[in-house]
Amino acid sequence: MSETTYTVTGMTCGHCVASVTEEINEIDGVTGVAVDLPTGAVTVTSSKPLDAADVREAVEEAGYQLAG
Amino acid sequence: MSETTYTVTGMTCGHCVASVTEEINEIDGVTGVAVDLPTGAVTVTSSKPLDAADVREAVEEAGYQLAG
Repeated sequence: MSETTYTVTGMTCGHCVASVTEEINEIDGVTGVAVDLPTGAVTVTSSKPLDAADVREAVEEAGYQLAG
Repeated sequence: MSETTYTVTGMTCGHCVASVTEEINEIDGVTGVAVDLPTGAVTVTSSKPLDAADVREAVEEAGYQLAG
Protein backbone atom coordinates (compact mmCIF):
# COMPACT_ATOMS: atom_id res chain seq x y z
CA MET A 1 0.00 0.00 0.00
CA SER A 2 1.40 3.35 -1.04
CA GLU A 3 0.06 6.90 -0.74
CA THR A 4 1.53 9.94 -2.43
CA THR A 5 0.23 13.49 -2.71
CA TYR A 6 0.95 15.48 -5.85
CA THR A 7 0.08 19.07 -6.70
CA VAL A 8 -1.76 19.57 -9.97
CA THR A 9 -2.16 23.03 -11.48
CA GLY A 10 -4.86 24.28 -13.82
CA MET A 11 -7.94 22.53 -12.43
CA THR A 12 -10.80 25.02 -12.19
CA CYS A 13 -13.96 23.00 -11.60
CA GLY A 14 -15.44 19.63 -10.79
CA HIS A 15 -15.15 18.53 -14.40
CA CYS A 16 -11.40 19.07 -14.21
CA VAL A 17 -11.27 17.02 -11.02
CA ALA A 18 -13.20 14.23 -12.74
CA SER A 19 -10.84 14.22 -15.73
CA VAL A 20 -7.71 14.03 -13.58
CA THR A 21 -9.25 11.35 -11.36
CA GLU A 22 -10.24 9.26 -14.35
CA GLU A 23 -6.81 9.37 -15.97
CA ILE A 24 -4.91 8.58 -12.77
CA ASN A 25 -7.29 5.72 -12.00
CA GLU A 26 -6.20 4.09 -15.23
CA ILE A 27 -2.64 3.64 -13.95
CA ASP A 28 -1.96 0.02 -13.01
CA GLY A 29 -2.07 -0.45 -9.25
CA VAL A 30 -4.01 2.70 -8.36
CA THR A 31 -6.72 2.01 -5.80
CA GLY A 32 -7.90 5.53 -5.01
CA VAL A 33 -7.64 9.18 -6.04
CA ALA A 34 -8.66 12.10 -3.84
CA VAL A 35 -8.56 15.65 -5.19
CA ASP A 36 -8.78 18.92 -3.26
CA LEU A 37 -9.71 21.44 -5.93
CA PRO A 38 -8.78 24.70 -4.12
CA THR A 39 -5.21 23.56 -3.41
CA GLY A 40 -4.73 21.19 -6.35
CA ALA A 41 -3.64 18.46 -3.95
CA VAL A 42 -4.14 15.02 -5.52
CA THR A 43 -3.61 12.09 -3.17
CA VAL A 44 -3.13 8.79 -4.91
CA THR A 45 -3.29 5.46 -3.11
CA SER A 46 -1.95 2.38 -4.81
CA SER A 47 -1.21 -1.25 -4.16
CA LYS A 48 2.44 -0.67 -5.09
CA PRO A 49 4.70 2.39 -5.41
CA LEU A 50 3.94 4.28 -8.62
CA ASP A 51 6.33 5.62 -11.20
CA ALA A 52 6.09 9.41 -10.95
CA ALA A 53 6.43 9.62 -14.71
CA ASP A 54 3.23 7.62 -15.12
CA VAL A 55 1.38 10.02 -12.83
CA ARG A 56 2.75 13.01 -14.70
CA GLU A 57 1.69 11.47 -18.00
CA ALA A 58 -1.84 10.82 -16.70
CA VAL A 59 -2.19 14.38 -15.43
CA GLU A 60 -0.98 15.79 -18.74
CA GLU A 61 -3.27 13.44 -20.64
CA ALA A 62 -6.16 15.01 -18.71
CA GLY A 63 -4.93 18.44 -19.80
CA TYR A 64 -3.22 19.66 -16.63
CA GLN A 65 0.27 19.93 -15.16
CA LEU A 66 2.07 18.52 -12.16
CA ALA A 67 3.66 21.31 -10.13
CA GLY A 68 7.38 20.99 -9.47
CA MET B 1 -34.44 30.78 -37.87
CA SER B 2 -33.80 32.49 -34.56
CA GLU B 3 -30.60 33.57 -32.81
CA THR B 4 -30.36 34.75 -29.23
CA THR B 5 -27.32 35.47 -27.06
CA TYR B 6 -27.51 34.76 -23.33
CA THR B 7 -24.92 35.36 -20.62
CA VAL B 8 -24.07 32.36 -18.48
CA THR B 9 -22.10 32.78 -15.26
CA GLY B 10 -19.90 30.24 -13.52
CA MET B 11 -18.24 28.53 -16.46
CA THR B 12 -14.52 28.16 -15.80
CA CYS B 13 -13.17 25.73 -18.38
CA GLY B 14 -13.81 23.82 -21.54
CA HIS B 15 -15.63 21.10 -19.64
CA CYS B 16 -18.12 23.68 -18.41
CA VAL B 17 -18.61 24.89 -21.98
CA ALA B 18 -19.23 21.32 -23.10
CA SER B 19 -21.81 20.73 -20.37
CA VAL B 20 -23.76 23.90 -21.17
CA THR B 21 -23.59 23.20 -24.90
CA GLU B 22 -24.84 19.65 -24.43
CA GLU B 23 -27.81 20.66 -22.28
CA ILE B 24 -28.91 23.51 -24.54
CA ASN B 25 -28.58 21.29 -27.60
CA GLU B 26 -31.23 19.02 -26.08
CA ILE B 27 -33.87 21.76 -26.33
CA ASP B 28 -36.29 21.07 -29.16
CA GLY B 29 -35.52 23.28 -32.16
CA VAL B 30 -31.95 24.19 -31.26
CA THR B 31 -29.64 23.98 -34.25
CA GLY B 32 -26.45 25.44 -32.83
CA VAL B 33 -24.75 26.63 -29.64
CA ALA B 34 -21.65 28.85 -29.56
CA VAL B 35 -19.99 29.69 -26.24
CA ASP B 36 -17.39 32.36 -25.53
CA LEU B 37 -15.85 31.24 -22.25
CA PRO B 38 -14.16 34.51 -21.15
CA THR B 39 -17.38 36.53 -21.43
CA GLY B 40 -19.91 33.78 -20.78
CA ALA B 41 -21.76 34.71 -23.96
CA VAL B 42 -23.81 31.78 -25.24
CA THR B 43 -25.33 32.25 -28.67
CA VAL B 44 -28.12 29.85 -29.49
CA THR B 45 -29.50 29.37 -32.98
CA SER B 46 -32.79 27.59 -33.44
CA SER B 47 -35.34 26.75 -36.06
CA LYS B 48 -38.02 28.55 -34.03
CA PRO B 49 -38.01 31.11 -31.19
CA LEU B 50 -37.13 29.43 -27.90
CA ASP B 51 -38.85 29.76 -24.56
CA ALA B 52 -36.35 31.57 -22.32
CA ALA B 53 -37.46 29.38 -19.42
CA ASP B 54 -36.29 26.29 -21.32
CA VAL B 55 -32.88 27.85 -21.87
CA ARG B 56 -32.63 28.83 -18.21
CA GLU B 57 -33.58 25.31 -17.17
CA ALA B 58 -30.95 23.78 -19.46
CA VAL B 59 -28.24 26.08 -18.12
CA GLU B 60 -29.17 25.28 -14.54
CA GLU B 61 -29.30 21.57 -15.36
CA ALA B 62 -25.69 21.88 -16.47
CA GLY B 63 -24.88 23.51 -13.13
CA TYR B 64 -24.62 27.17 -14.12
CA GLN B 65 -26.73 30.32 -14.02
CA LEU B 66 -28.19 32.68 -16.58
CA ALA B 67 -27.21 36.27 -15.79
CA GLY B 68 -30.08 38.73 -15.47
